[in-house]
Amino acid sequence: MSTTPAAESNVDVLVIGAGPAGLMAAHALAKFGVNVRIIDQRPAKVAAGQADGIQPRTVEVFQSYGLAERLLREGNQLHTAAFYNPNSSGGIECTGRARDVSADTARYPYEVTLHQGAIENIFLDSMATIGAKVERPVTPISMHISENSSELADPTKSPVRVVLKHLDAPEGQDTEIVNAKFVIGADGAHSWVRKTLNITLDGEQTNYIWGVIDILPTTDFPDVRNRCAIHSNNGSLMIIPREGDLIRLYIQLTDTDVVDPNTGRVDKDRMGPEELLQVAKKSFHPYTMDTDAFDWWTIYVIGQRVASKFSVHDRVFIAGDACHTHSPKAGQGMNASMNDTHNLAWKLAHVLRGWTDISLLKTYEFERRKYAQDLIDFDKKFSALFSGKPHTEENQDGVSHHQFLEAFQTFGLFTSGIGVHYAPSTIVNTTHQSYASNLIIGQRVLPHVFVRVADGRPFEIQDLLPSDARFKILVFAGDITQESQVARVKECAAHFDKPEGFFRKYGGKNPEKVFDVLAICSQQKDTLSYTDLPEVFRAHWSKVLTDDQDMFKRTGGDGYKTYGIDLLQGVVAVVRPDGYVSMLAPLDGVQDIDQYFSGFMRA
Amino acid sequence: MSTTPAAESNVDVLVIGAGPAGLMAAHALAKFGVNVRIIDQRPAKVAAGQADGIQPRTVEVFQSYGLAERLLREGNQLHTAAFYNPNSSGGIECTGRARDVSADTARYPYEVTLHQGAIENIFLDSMATIGAKVERPVTPISMHISENSSELADPTKSPVRVVLKHLDAPEGQDTEIVNAKFVIGADGAHSWVRKTLNITLDGEQTNYIWGVIDILPTTDFPDVRNRCAIHSNNGSLMIIPREGDLIRLYIQLTDTDVVDPNTGRVDKDRMGPEELLQVAKKSFHPYTMDTDAFDWWTIYVIGQRVASKFSVHDRVFIAGDACHTHSPKAGQGMNASMNDTHNLAWKLAHVLRGWTDISLLKTYEFERRKYAQDLIDFDKKFSALFSGKPHTEENQDGVSHHQFLEAFQTFGLFTSGIGVHYAPSTIVNTTHQSYASNLIIGQRVLPHVFVRVADGRPFEIQDLLPSDARFKILVFAGDITQESQVARVKECAAHFDKPEGFFRKYGGKNPEKVFDVLAICSQQKDTLSYTDLPEVFRAHWSKVLTDDQDMFKRTGGDGYKTYGIDLLQGVVAVVRPDGYVSMLAPLDGVQDIDQYFSGFMRA
Repeated sequence: MSTTPAAESNVDVLVIGAGPAGLMAAHALAKFGVNVRIIDQRPAKVAAGQADGIQPRTVEVFQSYGLAERLLREGNQLHTAAFYNPNSSGGIECTGRARDVSADTARYPYEVTLHQGAIENIFLDSMATIGAKVERPVTPISMHISENSSELADPTKSPVRVVLKHLDAPEGQDTEIVNAKFVIGADGAHSWVRKTLNITLDGEQTNYIWGVIDILPTTDFPDVRNRCAIHSNNGSLMIIPREGDLIRLYIQLTDTDVVDPNTGRVDKDRMGPEELLQVAKKSFHPYTMDTDAFDWWTIYVIGQRVASKFSVHDRVFIAGDACHTHSPKAGQGMNASMNDTHNLAWKLAHVLRGWTDISLLKTYEFERRKYAQDLIDFDKKFSALFSGKPHTEENQDGVSHHQFLEAFQTFGLFTSGIGVHYAPSTIVNTTHQSYASNLIIGQRVLPHVFVRVADGRPFEIQDLLPSDARFKILVFAGDITQESQVARVKECAAHFDKPEGFFRKYGGKNPEKVFDVLAICSQQKDTLSYTDLPEVFRAHWSKVLTDDQDMFKRTGGDGYKTYGIDLLQGVVAVVRPDGYVSMLAPLDGVQDIDQYFSGFMRA
Repeated sequence: MSTTPAAESNVDVLVIGAGPAGLMAAHALAKFGVNVRIIDQRPAKVAAGQADGIQPRTVEVFQSYGLAERLLREGNQLHTAAFYNPNSSGGIECTGRARDVSADTARYPYEVTLHQGAIENIFLDSMATIGAKVERPVTPISMHISENSSELADPTKSPVRVVLKHLDAPEGQDTEIVNAKFVIGADGAHSWVRKTLNITLDGEQTNYIWGVIDILPTTDFPDVRNRCAIHSNNGSLMIIPREGDLIRLYIQLTDTDVVDPNTGRVDKDRMGPEELLQVAKKSFHPYTMDTDAFDWWTIYVIGQRVASKFSVHDRVFIAGDACHTHSPKAGQGMNASMNDTHNLAWKLAHVLRGWTDISLLKTYEFERRKYAQDLIDFDKKFSALFSGKPHTEENQDGVSHHQFLEAFQTFGLFTSGIGVHYAPSTIVNTTHQSYASNLIIGQRVLPHVFVRVADGRPFEIQDLLPSDARFKILVFAGDITQESQVARVKECAAHFDKPEGFFRKYGGKNPEKVFDVLAICSQQKDTLSYTDLPEVFRAHWSKVLTDDQDMFKRTGGDGYKTYGIDLLQGVVAVVRPDGYVSMLAPLDGVQDIDQYFSGFMRA
C-alpha cells in the first residue's frame, strides 16, 4: 500500500463523461475560455452504433459552434419518411410518404444520421485546435459538496471536492483530488454522479422490447434510403438510413423472442443479430432484406424516466442520459443531451466571469427538466402507437396509417427541436412580444437571410449569432430615410451610450465582450451606407444589415414581415447566447432592457 | 568536384512550378492516381500579396475537386461593384452600383478574394491527405525532348529528359535526371520551360503603369468593402476588398511618378507604398484613406502577351503565366492559369491510362490558347477604358460612367469564366444541340438542383459531376410513367449493354471506372422508385434523380425546362471530366455516342 498523498488540483468546471452531452459542454466551455476538464472512464471512445440521429435544431446548434459543415459533409440526410402497412395479400405496401421533418421553419429541413463516434470526433477535433482534450481512462470515486451556504453562494469558491482515479496510472499514484467550482455529470443512463447525489429517476419501464441492427443491406425494398415506419402483421419495424450505405433497423420483439420463461426477464443472450434479421425479414415480406455484415446490434426495453432534480445546490449538474431516458425511435436521445449542456454552458461561463448572479444557474433545471418531461410524454404516446398492432380487417382496433401519420406530424415540431420554447423566467421576458409577433420570445431566432450593407453579401442571421457566450442585441432600426426614424434611432443609440444604460453598466469598458450589437434596417440597400448608423450600432463595418435581397435576388427580403416587425417602427431584440430570443423592447423603450439585465447581471 | 553519377528516375508527369497552375495540375493528377511529381525552385511558398481573385467559374472548379468549402470559409466575397466619378466640387462621388458578377447562371454569384498563399495551402493540404507534396527548392537545369517520332507517339515511353538540381543538397549529390512521359511548365511569366523550348511570347507592353498596395484601411469611404472602380481627375483607382479587413488598391501612376528621366524606363525604386498611398489619397478626396500597415505592394507595367504555342510535341506543355500575361485588374490571372491545367490534367490521365489516343492532348492548346487570346483582347479594351481619363465638363472625350459600366457588364460573362465556350473538336460535338437547347455544348454544365429519387434529397447537379477523370453520361430519361417512354429507355439501356456500344467497348470489364452514368427522369418523385430504372442506369441507388422539388419545395424543379429538354423525349448528355458538355444524343440515337468516343478513345 502506497503512502504517496493524492495530487490535488483546482478547476472551474469538471465534466464527468465524454459522450455527446459531456463533449458539447466541454467544447463550449473551452471555446468560451473557461478553465474546464473533461474525464471519461472508457479507455477509448465508441466506434460504431449507439445514438445516431441529429435533429434539425441540433444542426443549427452545431452550426452556431462552427461544427455543422463537417457534420453535413460526413452525415446522411433524411428528407423523406415512408409508411408501410399490411396489404391484403399478407405482405406490406407503401401507404404514403411525407416530409421526414415537419417543422416549416427548419433551416436544415432534414435529420442527419451519423454514428456517435463520428459525432464525438467533430467535438474532439475542434477541441484539439484549442488545446482541450478528454482525459481517459479516469473515473470519479467520491464527491463531496460543501454545505456552507456562503461558500455555495460565492462563485469564486470551489465547494465541490471530487476524488478521481486514473485507471492506467500505477497504484498509489492513481488518485487525484479535484476542487471544482462546478461539476457536470454527463455520465450516461447509469450515472455515477446521479447515484452519488441520491437523485431518483422517476418513471417506469415499458413492455416494449426492441432489437437494433446496423447493416449494409442487399434488398429490393424501394424505400431503403428513407426513414420508414413499417407496421406489419409480424410486428413493427423502423428503418433509419445511415452514412454511406448503412441502414439501421429497429425491430419489435415479443416476450417469446427474448424473455427467459424461468426468470420472466429479458435475456439478451437469447438473440443475436442473425436472429434479429430473421424477425425483420418476416415483416419485410414480400420484399427481401439481407446482409453480409452487421456493423452493430443491441436489444433494449424502452424505459421512460426523468430525474427528480437536475442539480444539487446549482454546483453539481446532471445532463443528458443521466437525467432522462426514453426510446431511441423518436431520434431524440443525443439531441436532448447535447441541448442540455448547450443550455448550461453559457450560463456557467457568465457566472464564472462574474457577469451574472449565480442564481442564473437555476434556469438550467427550470428549462431543461420541463423539456425532458415533455419528451417523455411524447415518447409514451409515440412508442405506444408504434409498438401497437396495425389496423387490419381482422384487427379493427389497431393503429391506422392515418392515426400514425397524424401523430408523426403533430409531434414533428417537437421532435425536430425547432419547437423548443423556454417559459418566462428571469432570462425570458415576454412583455413586448407584440413588437415582433413571429420572433417568439423563448424560441430560437427564426432563420432568415438579411443583406450586409457594406458589401451586399447575404447572410443567414443565425450565422451572425454564433455561440460565443455573448448576448446579441439586434437593433431593428427600421427605415432611416425617414427623418422621424433617424431621431428615434439616435435617441436609442444615446441610451446605449449612457453610463446607467445596460450596455455601459454591464458591458464595462469593453461592452463588445458581453454584447454583440447588430443593426438591421428595413430599407433597400441602395438607400443606405453602413456609415449612416450611429457608431454604437456599428462596432465594425460588418455589423450593419438590411432587409433586402442579394444582388441576384436569389435570397433575402421580407425579413421584417417574416418576423412580424413594423417596417417603420422597428424593435430591439435581445438574444441569449444560446440563440433563444430573450426579450423585445421598442426603440424608445430600451430602459426595459436595462431592467431585464438588472434581474441577473452584475455591474 | 564530385564524381558521383547523377541519380536517375522515372515519372509519368513532372510539374515544374508550384504556383496556382502547377498546384491545380499536380493536385488533379494525384487525385486521379497518376504518378506525378511537382517541383519548385523557391524554398517556401508565397505568404502574402500576388494574385488574389477567384472568379465564379473557378469556384465551381474548386468545388468539383472538393476544395470550395474551405475557399469559401477563408475568402472574402465580392457581391457589389461601385463606380465613382468626378463631381462638380473637385472630388469623387458614387455614380452607381451593380452586381460584381454579371453572369446570370453563376452558381456562386460573387468573386472570392483570398491571398495566393492561402489558395496554395488549400491544394497543398488536400495533396497531403493523399501523400503528395511539393519538392523544393528544386530547379530544372536542362531539358531534352526526343525527336524519335515512334517514341513520341507511344504514351508508355518517356521522351523527356530533365536534369534537376536540388538546391539544398550537398554539391555533387544535388543533380537528378528525370525521365518523364510528360512535363508541365507552370513556372510563371519568366518561365524557364518556355524559354528552353524557344517559345516566343507575342504581344506588347502598354504604357499603363500601376501601383498596388494591400492595406488595413482607416477610412470614411462607404464602399470600402465593395469592388470599386474610381475615375478621378487625379487618376484611376480600383479597390478590391480582401479577406479579413484588408483591401487592395490598384493605383494608376504617371510617367513622372515612376519613370527615370535619364533612362526612360520604369524605376520601381522611385516609389514605395507610402508614396503610392499618397497618390491614392488625392483620388479619394473628399473621403479619407489611411493605414497603419502595408501588407504587400508592387508596381507594374501592363503587358499583354500570349505564347506562340502551348506545347512541344504534346509532351511538354506550358500553362498559366508561362503562356499568357495580362493586367491583374480583370481579376483573371490566377483563374486562367488554374483553368489551363484543369483542362489538361484529365487528358493526361486518360492518355496515361491508355484509354484515349495521345492526339487528345492537341485539344489543350486548341482550347486554352484561344481562351488566352480572347482574354488579351478583352484586357486591352478594359485596361484602356480604365486607365483613360474620366469624362468631365472639361474633358468631353473622357470615359463616361455609362461607357465603363457597359464594358464592365459586357465583359462580365467573360471575366467570370462562366462564358468559357470550347469550340468544336474531336471532344466537342455540337450535332444534336437542339435536344437540350440550354445545355450548351462546349460550355460547363448549367447548375441546377435535381432530387435524388431514393431519399428525396436535393442535389446541385454540379456536385454529382466531380472532377474524377470520368466521363459523365447523363441519361435524361423523361417520364417513365409513359409506356412508350419505358420502351425507349429500355432500348437505350440495351445499347449500353451491347459489347460494341461505347459503354462496354471503352469501359471494359468495369465501365464505371471510365463512365459515371446518372439517370434523370422528368416526372414527380412520388411516381418513381429508383428500382424502376434499368440496372445499367443505376450502378448505385444514388444514381437516379428526377426533375422535382425537395420535400419543402425550397429548391429544384423545372430542370428540363431550364435545360431546354423535351419532358417526354429526354436526351443523353455526355459531359467531359472537366465539367464541360461534350455532346448530346437522342435516347434512340446513342450510336452517335459510340461514334463520338471512337474519335479519340481506344478499346
